Amino acid sequence: MSSTILNVGLLGAGRIAGVHATAISTNPGSRLAAVSDINQAAAEKIAAQYGAEARSTDAILNDPAINAVLIATSTDTHSDLIERATAAGKAVLCEKPVDLSLGRAQACQKVTAATGKPVMIGFNRRFDPNFAALKAAADRGEIGKTELLSITSFDPAPPPIAYIKVSGGLFRDMMIHDFDMANFIMGAAPVSVSAVGTSIVDPEIGAAGDVDTAVVTLAYADGRIAVIKNSRRAVYGYDQRLELLGSEGLLQAQNMLENTLVKSTTSGVIGAKPTYFFLERYMPAYAAEWAAFVTAVNTGSALPVTLDDGVAALAMAEAASQSAKTGSPVKLAEVLG
Amino acid sequence: MSSTILNVGLLGAGRIAGVHATAISTNPGSRLAAVSDINQAAAEKIAAQYGAEARSTDAILNDPAINAVLIATSTDTHSDLIERATAAGKAVLCEKPVDLSLGRAQACQKVTAATGKPVMIGFNRRFDPNFAALKAAADRGEIGKTELLSITSFDPAPPPIAYIKVSGGLFRDMMIHDFDMANFIMGAAPVSVSAVGTSIVDPEIGAAGDVDTAVVTLAYADGRIAVIKNSRRAVYGYDQRLELLGSEGLLQAQNMLENTLVKSTTSGVIGAKPTYFFLERYMPAYAAEWAAFVTAVNTGSALPVTLDDGVAALAMAEAASQSAKTGSPVKLAEVLG
Amino acid sequence: MSSTILNVGLLGAGRIAGVHATAISTNPGSRLAAVSDINQAAAEKIAAQYGAEARSTDAILNDPAINAVLIATSTDTHSDLIERATAAGKAVLCEKPVDLSLGRAQACQKVTAATGKPVMIGFNRRFDPNFAALKAAADRGEIGKTELLSITSFDPAPPPIAYIKVSGGLFRDMMIHDFDMANFIMGAAPVSVSAVGTSIVDPEIGAAGDVDTAVVTLAYADGRIAVIKNSRRAVYGYDQRLELLGSEGLLQAQNMLENTLVKSTTSGVIGAKPTYFFLERYMPAYAAEWAAFVTAVNTGSALPVTLDDGVAALAMAEAASQSAKTGSPVKLAEVLG
Amino acid sequence: MSSTILNVGLLGAGRIAGVHATAISTNPGSRLAAVSDINQAAAEKIAAQYGAEARSTDAILNDPAINAVLIATSTDTHSDLIERATAAGKAVLCEKPVDLSLGRAQACQKVTAATGKPVMIGFNRRFDPNFAALKAAADRGEIGKTELLSITSFDPAPPPIAYIKVSGGLFRDMMIHDFDMANFIMGAAPVSVSAVGTSIVDPEIGAAGDVDTAVVTLAYADGRIAVIKNSRRAVYGYDQRLELLGSEGLLQAQNMLENTLVKSTTSGVIGAKPTYFFLERYMPAYAAEWAAFVTAVNTGSALPVTLDDGVAALAMAEAASQSAKTGSPVKLAEVLG
Repeated sequence: MSSTILNVGLLGAGRIAGVHATAISTNPGSRLAAVSDINQAAAEKIAAQYGAEARSTDAILNDPAINAVLIATSTDTHSDLIERATAAGKAVLCEKPVDLSLGRAQACQKVTAATGKPVMIGFNRRFDPNFAALKAAADRGEIGKTELLSITSFDPAPPPIAYIKVSGGLFRDMMIHDFDMANFIMGAAPVSVSAVGTSIVDPEIGAAGDVDTAVVTLAYADGRIAVIKNSRRAVYGYDQRLELLGSEGLLQAQNMLENTLVKSTTSGVIGAKPTYFFLERYMPAYAAEWAAFVTAVNTGSALPVTLDDGVAALAMAEAASQSAKTGSPVKLAEVLG
Repeated sequence: MSSTILNVGLLGAGRIAGVHATAISTNPGSRLAAVSDINQAAAEKIAAQYGAEARSTDAILNDPAINAVLIATSTDTHSDLIERATAAGKAVLCEKPVDLSLGRAQACQKVTAATGKPVMIGFNRRFDPNFAALKAAADRGEIGKTELLSITSFDPAPPPIAYIKVSGGLFRDMMIHDFDMANFIMGAAPVSVSAVGTSIVDPEIGAAGDVDTAVVTLAYADGRIAVIKNSRRAVYGYDQRLELLGSEGLLQAQNMLENTLVKSTTSGVIGAKPTYFFLERYMPAYAAEWAAFVTAVNTGSALPVTLDDGVAALAMAEAASQSAKTGSPVKLAEVLG
Repeated sequence: MSSTILNVGLLGAGRIAGVHATAISTNPGSRLAAVSDINQAAAEKIAAQYGAEARSTDAILNDPAINAVLIATSTDTHSDLIERATAAGKAVLCEKPVDLSLGRAQACQKVTAATGKPVMIGFNRRFDPNFAALKAAADRGEIGKTELLSITSFDPAPPPIAYIKVSGGLFRDMMIHDFDMANFIMGAAPVSVSAVGTSIVDPEIGAAGDVDTAVVTLAYADGRIAVIKNSRRAVYGYDQRLELLGSEGLLQAQNMLENTLVKSTTSGVIGAKPTYFFLERYMPAYAAEWAAFVTAVNTGSALPVTLDDGVAALAMAEAASQSAKTGSPVKLAEVLG
Repeated sequence: MSSTILNVGLLGAGRIAGVHATAISTNPGSRLAAVSDINQAAAEKIAAQYGAEARSTDAILNDPAINAVLIATSTDTHSDLIERATAAGKAVLCEKPVDLSLGRAQACQKVTAATGKPVMIGFNRRFDPNFAALKAAADRGEIGKTELLSITSFDPAPPPIAYIKVSGGLFRDMMIHDFDMANFIMGAAPVSVSAVGTSIVDPEIGAAGDVDTAVVTLAYADGRIAVIKNSRRAVYGYDQRLELLGSEGLLQAQNMLENTLVKSTTSGVIGAKPTYFFLERYMPAYAAEWAAFVTAVNTGSALPVTLDDGVAALAMAEAASQSAKTGSPVKLAEVLG
């Protein structure tokens, strides 16, 4: 194996792991060496498809020929696996969120930092070509000084109540992507977080102690403001948009559509819907995310998203959860302790 | 004069009064009879253009041949003129806001109600064809049960600081339109109001005690949420949009553009900007507003916007002002006393 | 009457005459003095609405106080009235087409030229803000050297067969607007005209000797090409678009829509249709057309569209009619004789 | 090898062959077995990337384990290779055009038909998701009876003059895609072809005996009309659009854009350009084309595009070339002999 080809172990063999397996295999700088999963058959299927081996997680972590691991297991295992993998000298790309517990994530952050190994958190949306183009345009100063960010982020349909109950809640499970997006676009963490949430889509979600629709306002030290809107249900598809107002203009990243067909009849002018969900919308983002990880690890350059970013987003989720309950703004500093 | 032609006195002869004079004159159900203004020359100019008389406000209010007055004078005179005109038996269309003081507006509301005369407040945006189409579609149930409303409302450029100082502040002067829009679309007043404001466009606005950029979240008794974004500066033009998410879809009313020209070059695909400001965007709305007033007065049917609506929006502005200062949500009931 | 206010006689009191009456009355540089029509009641109605007199055509033409006439009578009277009005010293704005007979129009051109009086032909589309913006951008060189023009021009529904029979045919009645548009945009007349026509919308139109769908290709001396598409039926509304390809880009003037509402549901993303027909789409163009006429006549500057332009478009219609019958290209020089 | 996995030989190893190699390798129903090219190094590079062998064309055609060949060599070898491959019992997917000579293509058609082996021509645009959606909507009757088709097809920049000279000319090299698209959408061949061509983009193209800009009108037996516009230069990118007017509406397939970013400034509202050229725009189409071939061959069902389609498009190119020279329409029957 050439020193510039990453030998990758994939931990987890579920749906999103399959997406990562393709990205790993088609990237010229990496190769899928091994896959593990508590469901052995699932691991074997992915392994066969890409000429890799199905092995145990232990075997993967102990194999010195494996340079990097991609963690796509259930959330409750993330912190442990990040710690074990970095201790074993691997570079790590871990799916979001780091943990449902901010304290546990902060502990993991401390332990991992000591190893000096690179840990990237899978905030794939930063690599969406539309959002990345917006960030690049803002950084080039194309709209002057940035002032007001709006994030619209609606899922097509709510997950099962059983999932809701173990998800950590909308703020930690769903809006965490948008908290990271705000941090990415604004280039800073907010000072305070104000949340209003409701369970108007499905009262059972409210009965389970969660909200399904929420608006969160973020206030920044320099006077800027961001607002995030989430809904668990947009029947027309995955609605993922950004708007950034600046002193010299507005940037908007709009939805990607299923196709460009437009039909004009007596009923109106009808076009295609947004792509249905994250697998359709963010497929190019997953490939770009992996490519960025490979480049950073292989060249030793800075990771574009770090474990610190994962902890920062989690802290905002924690603050939003508290604010939605009390009705009052929560300072991020209080949450971070 | 036929009994179905309103004989109208126009109080005020400034820029917006000119717009109203045209609407009054071209509407087949009304005719401009008289104009008054503290600037006699301005009143005479409008009067000459439309074959009306320049008279004093007293003369207009005392003339039994005048059926209706349109009040387009400075805000501090609105409450007095509404009271005097209704006492004199006139139907009234008064420019927004009713007053900068909620207490004064509530007093005016009480006095006027006793006269039984129709008083409409000039929330012209309800008559914008795009917003009206959105409201009609929502009322027809085209997106099911409504859940989350977003209002984007940016001016092209901030007014002079001198104006800011007497304006009553962004919430009473500018966002009051959006408060009424929320009431119009949602068909209800919110329970609580949370505001975050900043003076990031121009620190002098902050020095004058006002904000120039704000996000306000409205929570409704039935769990619905609305969010309003205001900025005093959108250099690309007057940005006036609505988005309403419902259980069966999304409605968006987008900006009207200067023209439909699109240019594709190596620099990208370039289209026209939004119309520059309210006179361009809302010209059709002013005519429709006046037509609705004429129809309601001539037929005795209910006014589409009332003095009560004016007071309701003012109360929300009051609550938002308080919330922006304290950082905590304000219950509307507390403000209304 | 001030020397800078045109005193206008309106010949004809049909639907389009009503549009012109409004433009004449609201323009500060003109006033509607008199209206004539073979239907006296129709003339009286318009006259009453705008404070004018209903008079005979003879009386209008013989009145020295009338400076200009707007001819909105039936096509077969145009040439005669243009000749009589210019002989009587009036400035003339005449609805298109000049005549159905190219020979008669050319004779009128000769007679009128001798009087030196200004005669403008009502090719209102040149004054559509979208098409005018496209022309201005092209003239500023924004897409470099122009190469290929496409005109899409579809009516919402075919007229009655009785109208088709006296219309002069699609090329003289409908596409004549597009021939003038090609001349306007390209700034030159073509060398040859190739037409393909069919009566696929309604075979009765074919039985009446006309076509209802046609594609005409125009070849220019300098190698440029234009293509015009016409259909008598676009059920979704009046489809009026331009595309101009140049060495440095593409300009497109798109349809104006009924409103900006967009609805996203499981069925797709649905927007408003184009405005229904010419009265909706071109209302601003009629006002701008009249304003341009008033300015040219009052200042003595060149008319933006002339009788020569009317004859040029008619010659192209004649050539297209011949080409559609023979199947071969027709040189414009042959038609002009 | 399972009987349902196609073992594929790739003839040619140029740029487009690389695209096909990826499609072959990632399709679960096929595998890349061998690659040949006169440039041995190019063949070896592709072979190495996908675990295939670099072999001679003879060796590939003589290997009974190879079930199918994809011909991506230079146009002058297509007919010979189609004949040899079908004689050797292979299923064939051959890049367009079949040949520059209509006679040679017709001879190949006859020889190949005798073998009964499936031969598909690579008109990849039929598999573009936008065009395919338009065709499907039309076939479902969503716009009623189809009447008028418009095809806009502009390249971003002209090829080198050296290429122009051996290309067979714009009609055979570039517009042949659009002739096939017309046949695909209209479901029939036209009766006659009228062409107007010019070398306005680059006079050297004219000096080389070719045109760079052309408009071709197709007349169908049932009265329908199609019009194709080609330009060798659209500086803003690859402009590939369809419009189909029917008795009940209009279908438009619009361009795919580089991203969905929109920037509003004082200069206007600026969006991304169309994707740059065919590799960007039609990458999904190449994968879908190959998938359709694999399915048809593996299941024995009808090919979606056949050698007959390749000959039909070539005949239209021949007719257009003649028409552009003579200036008169050419009947397709005359060309087909």
